[in-house]
Amino acid sequence: MDTTIEFLGEPKIDSPLRMGQFVENDERILFNVCAAGVARDFANGTEPVSFLKAGPRRKVFFDTSKLRCAIVTCGGLCPGLNNVIRSLVLTLHHSYGVTNILGIKYGLQGFIPRYGHPFVELTPESVSEINELGGTILGSSRGPQDMEAIVDALVRSNIRILFAIGGDGTFRAVSKMTEEIRNRRENISVVGIPKTIDNDILYSSRSFGFNTAVGIAAEVIGSAHVEALGAPNGIGLVKLMGRHSGFIAASAALDKRDANFVLIPESDFDIEGPHGLLQKLGERILDRRHAVIVVAEGAGQRYCAVGGTDESGNVRLGDIGLYLKDQIQRYFESKDLEINLKYIDPSYLIRSVPATPNDSVFCGFLAQNAVHAGMAGKTNMMVGTWNDEFVYVPINLVVTGRKQVDLNDKLWRSVLEATGQPPLKPEE
Amino acid sequence: MDTTIEFLGEPKIDSPLRMGQFVENDERILFNVCAAGVARDFANGTEPVSFLKAGPRRKVFFDTSKLRCAIVTCGGLCPGLNNVIRSLVLTLHHSYGVTNILGIKYGLQGFIPRYGHPFVELTPESVSEINELGGTILGSSRGPQDMEAIVDALVRSNIRILFAIGGDGTFRAVSKMTEEIRNRRENISVVGIPKTIDNDILYSSRSFGFNTAVGIAAEVIGSAHVEALGAPNGIGLVKLMGRHSGFIAASAALDKRDANFVLIPESDFDIEGPHGLLQKLGERILDRRHAVIVVAEGAGQRYCAVGGTDESGNVRLGDIGLYLKDQIQRYFESKDLEINLKYIDPSYLIRSVPATPNDSVFCGFLAQNAVHAGMAGKTNMMVGTWNDEFVYVPINLVVTGRKQVDLNDKLWRSVLEATGQPPLKPEE
Amino acid sequence: MDTTIEFLGEPKIDSPLRMGQFVENDERILFNVCAAGVARDFANGTEPVSFLKAGPRRKVFFDTSKLRCAIVTCGGLCPGLNNVIRSLVLTLHHSYGVTNILGIKYGLQGFIPRYGHPFVELTPESVSEINELGGTILGSSRGPQDMEAIVDALVRSNIRILFAIGGDGTFRAVSKMTEEIRNRRENISVVGIPKTIDNDILYSSRSFGFNTAVGIAAEVIGSAHVEALGAPNGIGLVKLMGRHSGFIAASAALDKRDANFVLIPESDFDIEGPHGLLQKLGERILDRRHAVIVVAEGAGQRYCAVGGTDESGNVRLGDIGLYLKDQIQRYFESKDLEINLKYIDPSYLIRSVPATPNDSVFCGFLAQNAVHAGMAGKTNMMVGTWNDEFVYVPINLVVTGRKQVDLNDKLWRSVLEATGQPPLKPEE
Amino acid sequence: MDTTIEFLGEPKIDSPLRMGQFVENDERILFNVCAAGVARDFANGTEPVSFLKAGPRRKVFFDTSKLRCAIVTCGGLCPGLNNVIRSLVLTLHHSYGVTNILGIKYGLQGFIPRYGHPFVELTPESVSEINELGGTILGSSRGPQDMEAIVDALVRSNIRILFAIGGDGTFRAVSKMTEEIRNRRENISVVGIPKTIDNDILYSSRSFGFNTAVGIAAEVIGSAHVEALGAPNGIGLVKLMGRHSGFIAASAALDKRDANFVLIPESDFDIEGPHGLLQKLGERILDRRHAVIVVAEGAGQRYCAVGGTDESGNVRLGDIGLYLKDQIQRYFESKDLEINLKYIDPSYLIRSVPATPNDSVFCGFLAQNAVHAGMAGKTNMMVGTWNDEFVYVPINLVVTGRKQVDLNDKLWRSVLEATGQPPLKPEE
Repeated sequence: MDTTIEFLGEPKIDSPLRMGQFVENDERILFNVCAAGVARDFANGTEPVSFLKAGPRRKVFFDTSKLRCAIVTCGGLCPGLNNVIRSLVLTLHHSYGVTNILGIKYGLQGFIPRYGHPFVELTPESVSEINELGGTILGSSRGPQDMEAIVDALVRSNIRILFAIGGDGTFRAVSKMTEEIRNRRENISVVGIPKTIDNDILYSSRSFGFNTAVGIAAEVIGSAHVEALGAPNGIGLVKLMGRHSGFIAASAALDKRDANFVLIPESDFDIEGPHGLLQKLGERILDRRHAVIVVAEGAGQRYCAVGGTDESGNVRLGDIGLYLKDQIQRYFESKDLEINLKYIDPSYLIRSVPATPNDSVFCGFLAQNAVHAGMAGKTNMMVGTWNDEFVYVPINLVVTGRKQVDLNDKLWRSVLEATGQPPLKPEE
Repeated sequence: MDTTIEFLGEPKIDSPLRMGQFVENDERILFNVCAAGVARDFANGTEPVSFLKAGPRRKVFFDTSKLRCAIVTCGGLCPGLNNVIRSLVLTLHHSYGVTNILGIKYGLQGFIPRYGHPFVELTPESVSEINELGGTILGSSRGPQDMEAIVDALVRSNIRILFAIGGDGTFRAVSKMTEEIRNRRENISVVGIPKTIDNDILYSSRSFGFNTAVGIAAEVIGSAHVEALGAPNGIGLVKLMGRHSGFIAASAALDKRDANFVLIPESDFDIEGPHGLLQKLGERILDRRHAVIVVAEGAGQRYCAVGGTDESGNVRLGDIGLYLKDQIQRYFESKDLEINLKYIDPSYLIRSVPATPNDSVFCGFLAQNAVHAGMAGKTNMMVGTWNDEFVYVPINLVVTGRKQVDLNDKLWRSVLEATGQPPLKPEE
Repeated sequence: MDTTIEFLGEPKIDSPLRMGQFVENDERILFNVCAAGVARDFANGTEPVSFLKAGPRRKVFFDTSKLRCAIVTCGGLCPGLNNVIRSLVLTLHHSYGVTNILGIKYGLQGFIPRYGHPFVELTPESVSEINELGGTILGSSRGPQDMEAIVDALVRSNIRILFAIGGDGTFRAVSKMTEEIRNRRENISVVGIPKTIDNDILYSSRSFGFNTAVGIAAEVIGSAHVEALGAPNGIGLVKLMGRHSGFIAASAALDKRDANFVLIPESDFDIEGPHGLLQKLGERILDRRHAVIVVAEGAGQRYCAVGGTDESGNVRLGDIGLYLKDQIQRYFESKDLEINLKYIDPSYLIRSVPATPNDSVFCGFLAQNAVHAGMAGKTNMMVGTWNDEFVYVPINLVVTGRKQVDLNDKLWRSVLEATGQPPLKPEE
Repeated sequence: MDTTIEFLGEPKIDSPLRMGQFVENDERILFNVCAAGVARDFANGTEPVSFLKAGPRRKVFFDTSKLRCAIVTCGGLCPGLNNVIRSLVLTLHHSYGVTNILGIKYGLQGFIPRYGHPFVELTPESVSEINELGGTILGSSRGPQDMEAIVDALVRSNIRILFAIGGDGTFRAVSKMTEEIRNRRENISVVGIPKTIDNDILYSSRSFGFNTAVGIAAEVIGSAHVEALGAPNGIGLVKLMGRHSGFIAASAALDKRDANFVLIPESDFDIEGPHGLLQKLGERILDRRHAVIVVAEGAGQRYCAVGGTDESGNVRLGDIGLYLKDQIQRYFESKDLEINLKYIDPSYLIRSVPATPNDSVFCGFLAQNAVHAGMAGKTNMMVGTWNDEFVYVPINLVVTGRKQVDLNDKLWRSVLEATGQPPLKPEE
């Protein structure tokens, strides 16, 4: 696992940062905190995997007085986007004296002239209150754009650091963009800031907005519980985000422990049959007269897959929420048992809220460390967090996979403890 | 308009209330506050219409020491149900010394033995924290039940005051119930507390939960606005409650003034044509690149009616939200303009939250005045609020129609001012 | 009671408002909704008192295309100030086409050159998100300023309508300002918008920010209750706003009914003696082991008065909260009973929050009706709300007194019912 | 550093937990994640320090069917107490089948007969909604109690696992309690759950309630900012919790970056002199006309110390908030500059709120891991979190010191970056 960070060149300029504490380039954070594993590495003479520690460096690569930077937000909305934008601008301006900061409108579209989106100038004044607003003041869009045209725009506009806030697809674009930049021998740094409401980006134990999203999702599960209690044989069915990873569903279900079934992409389940969801749900209803089901959008795709990909190149998902709704209604009709099913799909309401203070502080750290990286000439990398430290991770490593819920670890074990949910498949 | 309140009989027992201030039975609140109208009445020798003022009376009808009361919640959820239950129990217990209070489970079903829902005992302790919870601790259900069986249950269980918290359908049931009680010459008082998240009950200028609902609905419109701003040609479409009356949609749209089109049942609109919604929406998108539409569920039924009635006897509505979503998508496809439409239907999330403090205080007043009415032997009436006063209104008057948004009055005029929305029909 | 509104002159210009519904100048709202009282008036041949109904008029006084308006916020902070500013600007701009709107900085100071506060230009863009923020973007200040200098500034800057958002002191200034304007025969309209977090302005049944303030105050009382429950013999003591009127304390206490004693300026109480607060509190602690006391800042001034007036000319209040804290601690020390007293004074936290949606909508109505009044050339008046209608009330009438809690009416009766609080004085 | 966990004896009973995933007793989490440090240890032949990983074990020590457990909450309130209580009860009951759970009232007082606090029975039903409430349903108290009497009570009541939720002082009591238990050769396990709103407990990187507290504290700083902006030369001064550690002040200041000065116990500062706070504040006011100061209660004690200790044995702090308030007012009076200073002390409002969903989930993990520890016969230990893992740490290690803000690490560096605050002392 190659965790080496790419540099534009040797940083030779004294950092304009006034505070005395800098991070050295040999400070690294262990990947694995399991004592036995690390001991094994050393016994084998292998150096254990580690990430470069994030933070301000003594020397910077760019002459800040003439520097022009740009910020772009890509993909779906996520709480905290405006906080990241704001902290990038404030850190660039107040800590490094960068006064020339552009906002790119509507994601990568903003680089492509035919869309006609003008650049926006970003100043401490113009961003001063945007943290109170959900969404992104820059707008966003999905899907790839012509890479040569993007780099043309960067060069033409004399942008020397681009902060790209996005997910998987954006990071694949960053990888290609830096390749093109490298080929052209341009001194342009591209720094990624991971944005994924699903919290599924590799090598970042936490992503911004996730804390906020879990909070709202937990409230929604609470609403489903209230609805389930409020009617005879009430069933609350909540579909949450989580295309490949059930972190939101699992975490939100732990808040009030109101959910009785949590279905996530990582854990297969039967719908029919003696161990299946319908049978177990039926038993619960007869026993307790109400139930709450939480399903991540990527769960159970073997039942409802539609095929094809969307404009970002992601596999198009079938709607497991509506599918389950239908199956549950049919099942209880077949049993001649009147139920009251309330189906809730809150995703736009979750992703559009302003960030919680906790996420806001986290966004600030991400942005500061992204600025430190860019100023030092690091490129093709992202700011992540690992073992409670901020680290720099090569983009090329990040795009090799997805972070998922470990069915053997504490999160899922806690969900099983909290819900009392049985295995929804015959045991093997 | 007969506003006379029905009594079980002359209240002869001194009220156990300790505070000195009582309301006299000749205190009445004018229906009309328009000076000219009232002057006209007097000039014509007509007595202007007025409602009996609510409040505690010097004399009560029931001997509180032996009294058994019951509380039932019917129909859909509404913020504040638990606050009303709690305040009824606390007022009955602490102010009148009534210690025998039953909760009826799952609405009128709870009276019918074959459903097997046991009565619940309600005490100050058991209700002490329920105001923190959404929904109703008693559960609710829709639909009528056999009236003789209900009155049988009241008589059998020796219930002497029933507090019925519900809407239109419940009040029609109350009307029949009191008729049956009258025929049997039983001394049972039935007091209605209006519960309608749509705020559409006649002769009550405000209903509990409406304040809370508008607040959440306004947040949802804010989310739709964030989504609309967050993508090129973004359109946020929000479907809100409002079967026959657009109060929630109109009021919520006034909070942040983010909505550009507000569609309510009271105001007909074209979808097609030069004045129609699609044309005007298209102009807005070309001009401003984003738009927010708020539609009450009962609006535009001429486009999407499905016919039939539900179990409560209400006309089944077609889904105007999904209908508009389809129409808008088709329209812009036909214009070859790529839009980003986000459709949000938050109704379960609105009705299941706990009440705001403002609604909580209001619920307390309603409950206190309902108890005062019941103790005084008033029956077949509801507690309402009119011209900033609490009043008692005969149920038979209430069920004669529905309160709707007056298209010529301040609320709708404000919406038109705030949205700048053009008439969506050719002017006549 | 003279409710006649002062006009600059006959409005002769057709209103540019597009919607068809106007309010006529003979539409008036009855002051009294008590049927018997009005009947008595008519029987006596007296016309009952009424207020002019607020709303847009067919004819306006000012030519909107050249009009310059100004907005000033005075006195202490109150939730909703920014909502009023925003709605004034949006209504002036979008409904009447007024594009020249000035914001006066830091209250009446902003008119006086020596303070050096420049005017701020207000546009729909500059105010578009200010409703998300607490406080006032214009800043505020207390205290009177030289009236001639203010009118000089109005004339010099060619301001033709001034919207003055403030309380009692501000309204007295408005009264003098319009007198000076009248003497100079200037065509300048001054429209007051009542701002009082205490809700104590005469002839306005509700003031903006009050709803928000009660909500936060209720949460604080809830916190005091949590603290009281959390320790042996826990006592939560909360000081709330309310210099002359206990509306916040009384209303907030009704939310969760957690308060056991509510002390307001309108209701005198003993501290010592067999009926006094200390004795009753001691009984409560022995009986229940916890208690919550809510005291409005203006209550019990006979115990803690300090004399003198502040810069706004208001009587300086003694700190009844700290006084009671000391008295309670001494009392229980003298009884050798260990208590845990937690004293909370949340006033800055209450007045600085953004408005609730409910208050926000209300602010919108106030602002719209203020604009309608100003455009029609009305002056020396305020926008109020009475019997659920918006009305125009002469400032000279408003400054004659203060609205207070009626100890014989429903609010205080409800507080006594909810707290079970005994009379804290020997009965007369 | 001895991280060995004390056991009552060998756990021999098969765990009743149904899910298959257990944590082995040799799974340990590295203390240090810095790669170079660990490499150095291995090079030196030293085993790097590590903590035992928390989680369910295959074998338990206690026979769950007959087991009686108890829960006690000690010291000041902290958001999440009820969540921990609830999760302990639900995990004991649902996961291990323990049906006999006692709640001890009012902290350690609850064990001492002369206080007369009866034990409370805790069941899944009785705790089902307590997570919605702030504070602790058990009540709490400060100060030590006779250790023999406590152990007498444990033995007499046949309590075999005691879950002690508290801070520093409580943990010192736990240490003595287990010593007494050891001396008596009783099989009683005592498991600590760290409760410190200041987040200052050693070897736990995060404590419950901290996330919630930072959120509310950040809102309060926002209010102070609104107040500072709302008046000419406005200064908002906020005193936050933090007796020895400035985590709340530092973290909350990072949310909106509204604070200009953050004063914490770890960083000494001058008040007078050319580098002192007053001089720098004066410069800020002249430059920007408003300022916000956040001070942790333990900061600057050299200016305001009062001496002595409180009933928990903690050093009594002087009130630095009021001291600064006075100093600031005097300073500007001496400069003849009128300021508007608003002083806010929100501590009771912060510690009494319900936990955020994020904290609630965290409380669940703590409680589950505490139960796993107790069931396995571990004692005299606490559940902590380290490097994103849950771990078990010996109490005797925990009470050796306090966690403080590292002035050279990212949190404080971020605060300096965000505030732009100069060193408030002459550089050495």
